[in-house]
Amino acid sequence: MTANKVETAKHIVLTSHPPRDQKQAYPLDWGNPDPIKRGPVIGSLTNADDRNVIGSHSGSYSIYRALAVAAGTLDPEHKADLTNTSPTNKIGPYSQWSEPNRIVSIDPWGHMVADIFGDLIAQGIDIRPSIAITRARINMPEFAEAVQSGRLKPDGETLLENGDVSVTKIALEPVWHLPGIAARFGIAESELRRNLFEHTGGMFPELVTRPDREIFLPPIGGMTVYVFGDLAGLTDPSVKVACRVHDECNGSDVFGSDICTCRPYLTHGVEECVKMAQSGGAGLVVYNRKEGRALGEVTKFLVYNARKRQKGGDTADTYFERTECVAGVQDMRFQELMPDVFHWLGIKRIDRFMSMSDMKHDALVRQGIEIGERVPIPDELIPSDANVEMDAKKAAGYFTGEEAPQQKDLSDTKGRNLDDY
Amino acid sequence: MTANKVETAKHIVLTSHPPRDQKQAYPLDWGNPDPIKRGPVIGSLTNADDRNVIGSHSGSYSIYRALAVAAGTLDPEHKADLTNTSPTNKIGPYSQWSEPNRIVSIDPWGHMVADIFGDLIAQGIDIRPSIAITRARINMPEFAEAVQSGRLKPDGETLLENGDVSVTKIALEPVWHLPGIAARFGIAESELRRNLFEHTGGMFPELVTRPDREIFLPPIGGMTVYVFGDLAGLTDPSVKVACRVHDECNGSDVFGSDICTCRPYLTHGVEECVKMAQSGGAGLVVYNRKEGRALGEVTKFLVYNARKRQKGGDTADTYFERTECVAGVQDMRFQELMPDVFHWLGIKRIDRFMSMSDMKHDALVRQGIEIGERVPIPDELIPSDANVEMDAKKAAGYFTGEEAPQQKDLSDTKGRNLDDY
Repeated sequence: MTANKVETAKHIVLTSHPPRDQKQAYPLDWGNPDPIKRGPVIGSLTNADDRNVIGSHSGSYSIYRALAVAAGTLDPEHKADLTNTSPTNKIGPYSQWSEPNRIVSIDPWGHMVADIFGDLIAQGIDIRPSIAITRARINMPEFAEAVQSGRLKPDGETLLENGDVSVTKIALEPVWHLPGIAARFGIAESELRRNLFEHTGGMFPELVTRPDREIFLPPIGGMTVYVFGDLAGLTDPSVKVACRVHDECNGSDVFGSDICTCRPYLTHGVEECVKMAQSGGAGLVVYNRKEGRALGEVTKFLVYNARKRQKGGDTADTYFERTECVAGVQDMRFQELMPDVFHWLGIKRIDRFMSMSDMKHDALVRQGIEIGERVPIPDELIPSDANVEMDAKKAAGYFTGEEAPQQKDLSDTKGRNLDDY
Repeated sequence: MTANKVETAKHIVLTSHPPRDQKQAYPLDWGNPDPIKRGPVIGSLTNADDRNVIGSHSGSYSIYRALAVAAGTLDPEHKADLTNTSPTNKIGPYSQWSEPNRIVSIDPWGHMVADIFGDLIAQGIDIRPSIAITRARINMPEFAEAVQSGRLKPDGETLLENGDVSVTKIALEPVWHLPGIAARFGIAESELRRNLFEHTGGMFPELVTRPDREIFLPPIGGMTVYVFGDLAGLTDPSVKVACRVHDECNGSDVFGSDICTCRPYLTHGVEECVKMAQSGGAGLVVYNRKEGRALGEVTKFLVYNARKRQKGGDTADTYFERTECVAGVQDMRFQELMPDVFHWLGIKRIDRFMSMSDMKHDALVRQGIEIGERVPIPDELIPSDANVEMDAKKAAGYFTGEEAPQQKDLSDTKGRNLDDY
């Protein structure tokens, strides 16, 4: 019996010691251009001998899955019926999929497993998609305003008369190739594994006991990609591409909090993507589940209070400082992994990049993605209380069309006090 | 050295075997009305002897934290500076906080740690808030439409002339009391622990090796609570309370996908909360991070394709069936834990409940929360393609103002085909 034989085990088998025989039934050759030779990512929880990963599918939701089994509502032996679930649009394979260390945080074949590994699945091997591709009609209230004000014109294809926008949307779960992640950060794989284990409070001992397992399915949120216009345009050098890379901010994205520019920048990005699609180009919005700079919302709200209450009030000159006091870092998003999805989509150049973030820009350029024009958020879209963030970022070197404010002026840009809500 | 001595260890210490001496430096007495006797929840990653939990703070974002340490950008010894971060509004303590098994999935004292355990924190013990409370101004584009059409009238306090709505918002991280969770689901704690361990692919062996550790900080998303009007009203029997319990649906909540009613129901809920606050009552919206019925977005998109492609097309009569084929269950949200936040807020009665979900309604009633009027989403807010979901839910027994459709008619309610996008 191997280290993680689970469901059928009479007694609990821990994962802290490598099995005597570490030979894997389904070894992976990450980056191999032939998907069969590359091999399927298998996170089966009931056939431990088949497993070739650390962790399980569905990111954080694996916890709910375990709870469902514990509560007796989910048959642990259930295998997904993938009938009719295959992608609505073809993506890849692209040369980037097999270039060494090009893609380290997603499985480029994750949307095609039902086709590629159909025989194994038919034999009962629990192989699951880590990527799903579907079509959708979206309608953000801001579209109507854009049409009324003449910024957008319905074309009956991308943007319909009723304000609906036709998109292809793609959900991607994280699939981490640990040697590749370590290389991306320029650290030893053993250090990466040890820190992932120790600084999560001991999550997955296999990170340190199973160096033969190179794939980690981390319990974190993934990403969603919205594509506007023809998908083929994304990889066609003669077609222009507009892009917004957006990191989740629930308070603004959903509820429209006025302390930051997140939703306004997102809707601006979508608008530019629609325009690009209407003019024969293609657009994409990448939405990453990295709430509050990947610090989470509790930390975010603590920082809000510290900013609003500090001596002198909420000023741009102390914007980053307050986050660092509470969190230890200004930002924990790691844009280093973000470019992977562009390689997966076969994108080599972004013509219009709706972002002021140097971290995003530099991460993409470092990974060989060309960026043409950088498009800052139009001033009229910035909520009043969000100028603290904007000026702080501009002064810190974020891209801006106009001249960046001087450090000495930043104390003049002031946000609302807590009593003024 | 104990089982999870980490940072200072010369060698890696696994978590799979209980330490010789299991005496805890900071034992917890969950539910004790005296917070000092209850004790602080300590997830320190650098002083293993202080730890009294399984896992670490920040839910999923603990993975990013570990990555930051691995990448050398975060000092593992950093301790949060909580200066000025304390809650903007006082909440509790309430009698529910110490009633046995009333609150099992959050730490009722999680927002007050800086005050209650200030001395320990000053001594260098790494105690972190798991709840943060702040103030905000939110402005959803739908508010403007509601004002124009006369459904909402600015009052200069809750709803301002510019459409801003003044709220108190609260972020809560999951803190699971394993004996209480097991009791809530009516299963043995040992079964809960074993399944959480085995069906996550071996996450946290301490779930089975440390029965003395009753608290688990799961790497999942938490929740956000938006309160409208006077917080005190939530616990005042003479004040009416309106409420929407909303489970995350990024595709609709943010992007306005027309396949479901999520954002329309959310904005309807907020509107009703604003009205209630304006008429002297209080409103609250509970936003749970449970994307796609806690199945995640990849599964959700796979189901969309299966629904749209099945023989006969996307019809209400097969709505639930398709999810079950792919996921093994129709729903994985577990509303059983959802009522905890109401007990934390001291709420005993909801006068207007904007939800058609019997699962949410029944879970609240089972936990002793009285529910007055149930308010279904107004028909005019239902996107055309979302009628498949609506009719399927009504026929399945979801609450509806009108007569529920007959099973035989459900095949008539049909959604868009994939070629029609």
